This record gives sequence, structure tokens and C-alpha cells, in this order.
Amino acid sequence: MEKFEVHILGCGSALPTTRHNATSQIINLRDKLYMIDCGEGTQMQYRRSRLSFSRLGHIFISHLHGDHCFGLIGLISTFGLLGRTATLHIHAFPELERLLQPQLDYFCEGLTFKVEFHPFPHGCTDVIYEDRSLSVRAFPLSHRVPCCGFVFEEKPTAAHINREMIDFYEVPISHLNRIKSGEDYVTPEGKVIPNSRLTTPAASPRKYAYCSDTAFNPNNVQYIKGADLLFHEATFAESEAARAKQTCHTTARQAAEMARLSGAKQLLIGHFSARYTDEKILLDEARTIFPNTLLAEEEKMFKL
Amino acid sequence: MEKFEVHILGCGSALPTTRHNATSQIINLRDKLYMIDCGEGTQMQYRRSRLSFSRLGHIFISHLHGDHCFGLIGLISTFGLLGRTATLHIHAFPELERLLQPQLDYFCEGLTFKVEFHPFPHGCTDVIYEDRSLSVRAFPLSHRVPCCGFVFEEKPTAAHINREMIDFYEVPISHLNRIKSGEDYVTPEGKVIPNSRLTTPAASPRKYAYCSDTAFNPNNVQYIKGADLLFHEATFAESEAARAKQTCHTTARQAAEMARLSGAKQLLIGHFSARYTDEKILLDEARTIFPNTLLAEEEKMFKL
Repeated sequence: MEKFEVHILGCGSALPTTRHNATSQIINLRDKLYMIDCGEGTQMQYRRSRLSFSRLGHIFISHLHGDHCFGLIGLISTFGLLGRTATLHIHAFPELERLLQPQLDYFCEGLTFKVEFHPFPHGCTDVIYEDRSLSVRAFPLSHRVPCCGFVFEEKPTAAHINREMIDFYEVPISHLNRIKSGEDYVTPEGKVIPNSRLTTPAASPRKYAYCSDTAFNPNNVQYIKGADLLFHEATFAESEAARAKQTCHTTARQAAEMARLSGAKQLLIGHFSARYTDEKILLDEARTIFPNTLLAEEEKMFKL
Repeated sequence: MEKFEVHILGCGSALPTTRHNATSQIINLRDKLYMIDCGEGTQMQYRRSRLSFSRLGHIFISHLHGDHCFGLIGLISTFGLLGRTATLHIHAFPELERLLQPQLDYFCEGLTFKVEFHPFPHGCTDVIYEDRSLSVRAFPLSHRVPCCGFVFEEKPTAAHINREMIDFYEVPISHLNRIKSGEDYVTPEGKVIPNSRLTTPAASPRKYAYCSDTAFNPNNVQYIKGADLLFHEATFAESEAARAKQTCHTTARQAAEMARLSGAKQLLIGHFSARYTDEKILLDEARTIFPNTLLAEEEKMFKL
């Protein structure tokens, strides 16, 4: 199976602690890297992760609270000092460019690479980015300020050639690409060999859904259905349910409910409030609803 | 002796590494805290230091390179989330306000405290701040962009009463404050007892000088003369002297030369280039010129 990994650079919430950094994650799909959110200190955590700086091409920002974007200017400055040349693409609400550009102009004069903004509107439910290997769709979350989640979905890969059947029907090598892409084979005698006899189906495309920050809102299940891995914020324990509602955040139990309702295969919870010195209480509460739950943690990697 | 400490929050240079954070220091003078510079990640390092957030009243920014100021917005946001009410004073070149204010307006709406900017001009050599216990003077450094150093100087404290002599001359208690502040005592018989017989002199005021970032420039010795502790950047080893000159930084040996020329009691070097995985080479080079040299390090404290 090709690489599809989620690396946690930070999984704290608004107040960073000595245990948790502000939010940032890196998705590694087939050795291309994509960042989601970029709180203060992200560049240091990125360095700690030992992931390549140069393989990062795209950054997706969920919303304009500091703990999700204050690290951008430092990361970009550092890329500049390291002589990066490849364009860095930033996908975010339009306000980000207005806020970041004056800083770029002042602090990053003579930057060796281009920073390209790809704004998308509040409430967007479109695919905002795609390449050969994946598509990224935004969808609205329910926070105090405009906020969105992202679904990273692998593109279907070609079927695998069944070498024994290819030999049996004496299919010429020149036909293999067409068969990979789904065509049947017609023998010199005119006999049609259906594609399904010549190939084994590719693994079904994997899906990663990211939800942070948001109040509990079952209406959002439609956007995250059937994720192989669902990251969902779980800022609070159930004892703080009122506070969660008031601040438009989610309890661990509610995050688990979202995983159950959306048919996720696995749930990863994060964005922990600074009040918890041990997140086991959050994990335990989530697992009563959705047993296949994991705790995010800095420098940990989760495979899809 | 009253508390006068320098706490290192970060002593790396432009590229943060897994070993060093961007520049920031906290001066603790008699339990009032003053910050110099505030690179990315400062708030996390501050938390690690276990120093009080509420005792910080003033921040001094040496220049507008990211590794000296990108942490301000995050620190201020966090103070806001924690419900700070006391005004936070920021002393910096005028450009900082122009760059920071739009971010404060956007990200820190409804901030529970006031952020007050105290701009001072490029090339300033004035006392830019004073209170009952200290004065802070700015002075120009020699960097690629306008940059300044700071001298933190204790105010002289009152002389100590010599209890035995007070008893001997039967000085009434009501006279003690006047004697502390330097007056002589006149006995009921009209005999003048000189102040020097009634007191022992206070410790001489201590001085901390901070120089980062700067090229080696002996002209600047005039500003830092006689520091009890001199912090001086030592970005490079002597083998990189050309690079130091080109980038307007200092080698460890040159930092030591500044300490020697200015008659510092002790030298603390920092702002280490990311290329050194062990700064012992910098320490050794500095000590050939100025033996009483120490290496800055995150979470370390140096007393004056």
C-alpha cells in the first residue's frame, strides 16, 4: 500500500503548554507533503519530525485563529533563508492574504520563492485542490469565526495487472497500459477477454477527514462520511460540555459520536484544552462511544 | 543582594533548530520582569521557565528581524486568553507598531488589556525607560537593518544604616530615612556626625548590556562600558569570520574582544548559528581572549 500518513506537529488548543504545541499536521501521501494549519512553533516541530522541508508544496489553513496560523510567517521566512525555490501554495480564506502579505513584504523581502495564495470562500464545499494523487475538499465547520474542515481523498489508482492471465492470453506488452486503465483485450482471433479477468482491482481510495475547530454538529456528517481516519477536535471532557458549547468546541464523547455517525474506520482526537495534564480521560470518554479511537500526540504518526 | 537575573528563553539565530529557539530573554530585577526580544516560540519557552506571566510589564525589541519579534503576536494573544488586565508596554522602532497593530486588530479583538507602543528612533542613544529600580538605555548596533542594543542599569539603592553607630550616637528613629538618603546627623548639642560614619555604602548599581545582532564594531564599546554582565552575539566561529562580516554578525572571538575592550566583568555569548551542533568551539575561542565567558543556553539563568 502506498504511503498515506498523518504526522502530528501540534495538537494543543489556544493556549500552548509545555506538553502540547499549537495545531499543525503534515499529510504524507506518496512522499508529497501537505500541511494542515500552522500554529506558532510549527517550523520547530516540523524540523523535529525530520520530514523534508522541500517536499511540502501546499498548506491548508482551517481558520484565522492564531493557534492555527501564527506559525506561517516564521515557516516562510525559514524556507527563504534555506533558499527554497519552489512556489509555496497557501489555501485559506481570503482574509489571510490581507493579513500575511504586509508581513511578507516587510520581513521576507527578496524571498527566493513565490508564495501563492489560493483563497476560497467561507462556507465553501468544493474541491479546492487536486493533483494526480489526491483531491482536497473544504467543508464548513461550526465555530465562533468562519472555519472549515478538509477531506483529503486519494485518487483511484490503476488496477494491478494479473501477470498469469496476461501470459495465458499472450497479451502483448504494448497493450498493458490500456488494460491497466480498464480496457478489455481483444485477441487476434477477435475474442474479447474482459478486463476483470486480466487485472485485480486496486485498493479502494483512502480518505482522511480533518475537523478542527468546531461545535458538535451532526449536520456536518455529510461531509466526512466513510473516512478511513477522522481527525476530530476533542477540546473538552464531558464535564465541560457547557463550556464546549459556549466556545463552539467539541467534547471527546461528541467527537466519538461524529465518528460513529459518519462511519469512520478510525478516530483520532486532538486540540486538547490546556487544563488536561493527562488526556486519558478524553480517550476513555470517546471509546465508550467509538472504541477505535486514538489520541493525537506531538511527533506521532498515524497511517491510513 | 537583590535579585538581578537574566533568563535565556532562546539563544539560536535566524534558523531555529531542535536545540535552540529564536532569541528571547527575561530580565528579573527584584521580581519585576522585562523581556528583550521575542522570537517565535517565546511564549512556550516562557511557560517552561516557570516565570510569572503577570510580572512582565515591558518588552524591548532590538530590531525587526523575524527571529527577534515573530513571537509577539502569540504572546499577546495568550495573555489575552488568560485575562491579563495590566497594560503591556512595547519599546521598539516605530515600524513595529505599524506591522503589529493590524494583527492585533484582527486576532486580538476584545483584548482585556492595553498594548502600548513606545517607539524610539533608529540610532537612539537615550534612556528609553526608567522606573524606581532601573533605567534602560538603547544604543545603536551595526547590523544589516536598523538595530539596537540595550543597557539595563540598576538605580543606586540607599546606603545601609550602621545599627551600632546609630545606637552609639543615639540617633532618633524619626531621622533614619534622612540618614539613609545621605544626610548627616546633628546631635542636640549641635555636633555634626558625617553620614559616612552612620552608614555603610550600598552595593554599586549593576549593569547588564545586551548586544544582538551586530557586526564587530569597537565604536560601540562606549555604550557598554563596565557591564557586570555583557550578553554579546557570537553567531560564528573564527573560521567563518568572512561570513560574519558579510552578514553583519560577530564571531565568538570578536565578542570576547568587545568584552575585553569594554571592561565587562563577565561575558555571555549566544545567537548561535544553526551550523554548530556543539557550541564548545565558540566558548573555547572566546575564552582565549576573555576567560570569564559563559555559553547561553535555553532554560538557563545567569545572575548579576
